[in-house]
Amino acid sequence: MPAEHRLSRRVQFAETDLAGIVHFSQFFLYMEEAEHALWRQAGLSIAVPDDPIRFLRVAASCDYRAPLFFEEIFEVHIRIDAMGSRTIRYACAITRGETRIASGSMTVACVDIKASTPPKSIDIPVAIAVALA
Amino acid sequence: MPAEHRLSRRVQFAETDLAGIVHFSQFFLYMEEAEHALWRQAGLSIAVPDDPIRFLRVAASCDYRAPLFFEEIFEVHIRIDAMGSRTIRYACAITRGETRIASGSMTVACVDIKASTPPKSIDIPVAIAVALA
Amino acid sequence: MPAEHRLSRRVQFAETDLAGIVHFSQFFLYMEEAEHALWRQAGLSIAVPDDPIRFLRVAASCDYRAPLFFEEIFEVHIRIDAMGSRTIRYACAITRGETRIASGSMTVACVDIKASTPPKSIDIPVAIAVALA
Amino acid sequence: MPAEHRLSRRVQFAETDLAGIVHFSQFFLYMEEAEHALWRQAGLSIAVPDDPIRFLRVAASCDYRAPLFFEEIFEVHIRIDAMGSRTIRYACAITRGETRIASGSMTVACVDIKASTPPKSIDIPVAIAVALA
Repeated sequence: MPAEHRLSRRVQFAETDLAGIVHFSQFFLYMEEAEHALWRQAGLSIAVPDDPIRFLRVAASCDYRAPLFFEEIFEVHIRIDAMGSRTIRYACAITRGETRIASGSMTVACVDIKASTPPKSIDIPVAIAVALA
Repeated sequence: MPAEHRLSRRVQFAETDLAGIVHFSQFFLYMEEAEHALWRQAGLSIAVPDDPIRFLRVAASCDYRAPLFFEEIFEVHIRIDAMGSRTIRYACAITRGETRIASGSMTVACVDIKASTPPKSIDIPVAIAVALA
Repeated sequence: MPAEHRLSRRVQFAETDLAGIVHFSQFFLYMEEAEHALWRQAGLSIAVPDDPIRFLRVAASCDYRAPLFFEEIFEVHIRIDAMGSRTIRYACAITRGETRIASGSMTVACVDIKASTPPKSIDIPVAIAVALA
Repeated sequence: MPAEHRLSRRVQFAETDLAGIVHFSQFFLYMEEAEHALWRQAGLSIAVPDDPIRFLRVAASCDYRAPLFFEEIFEVHIRIDAMGSRTIRYACAITRGETRIASGSMTVACVDIKASTPPKSIDIPVAIAVALA
């Protein structure tokens, strides 16, 4: 079963800008919310207190097709697109009903924030890789 | 002379997250700040009150190479990478001293937000195209 | 029946700061989310497209008693504390289980954003006052 | 001489909302930026890496008098209004030219985030109290 999650979400007022639509940077927050919901669904947390392992972004992108407005309900469909030994790539589709709003991707790298400055990537712990598979 | 701008900026507290570094979504705000400073340098505003012309994102991406920390001073170097009749693509480099922090790109489309819903792209007004060239 | 609403919400990653807790400014967004949910519960929207009536903040405050952490679930209890002819004051309690996290208040004034610059307050439309009562 | 600072700042696009003005929550970020600039002016940082001392908000409030618009330049005048053994209260005035935009206050408590959960307030270190006096 591929790891994926569908997050339903409503646009909040402060997420809009003076053009009257959701600000483009906000879509990265929507994708991140869906990512963390996917992890919780797998019984995981992306950031465990006192655990030095973190998953830092190495890449993020988004293509915008249609605007999203205040109070609209939309869905973020996130799935793991590729998992390497040290990185995870997600593909995201943001839709409002049948309308495609945006498509995005994010790649995260597993790092030990205590081990080095700047943090270097390490292998994803097996328990996490298994739970997300 | 290619249109470009160098914005110097300090990391603010609220831009960090619990990993102790600047949140990845924040880099899109940094790039946007530099974009609008580039426009002001050219004698323009990206959003003139009561003018229905807006420049909406159609794509945005960022690659992250090194973390950025609270109170650090960094530079956003933005330049116009390509200008079509209806779109502008920017290339951005975010650096702290000699260290490359991130590289990004954004593409915006000129739209008339009064003319149609959803907004359709229109030609960039000549005065804007000339000022940015 | 007094107008009130209870919003259940989970802390998102980007809402935290380098101190590892939710940033203090974020609580005003939580209160606003609850306010707009209260309005929807009453069959209203705080911002109707093409309607010049808006409700602008004239005051906001928050007292913080305990920190809130990533992924915690909390509740925002908002109620209308006072309604004048032109303003509404809300009282908010933010709790995590039995723990009081914060207490806040917000006062909004009804304005016609088309009628004057800067916007002047006007009487709250009767239909809105009745629906919220 | 009372500790105070004047921060000059320009409104950024993402700080606005669909009402076309700066979102009310943003003013707390403006005040915080000014607070940290005041600390830097005194040779201090509000958050020193690996130092467990933090200054958490215990109260924040803002009164809004006039809206602030995209690209406007404004000033945040912050001063220390009261300093106790464990807390600091700031008073802030946000102005655009001669126009008062908002007035705010913030109270922070000195805590040791390593010593207890939830963090308990401790005495402000003498070196900090002296530098800010």
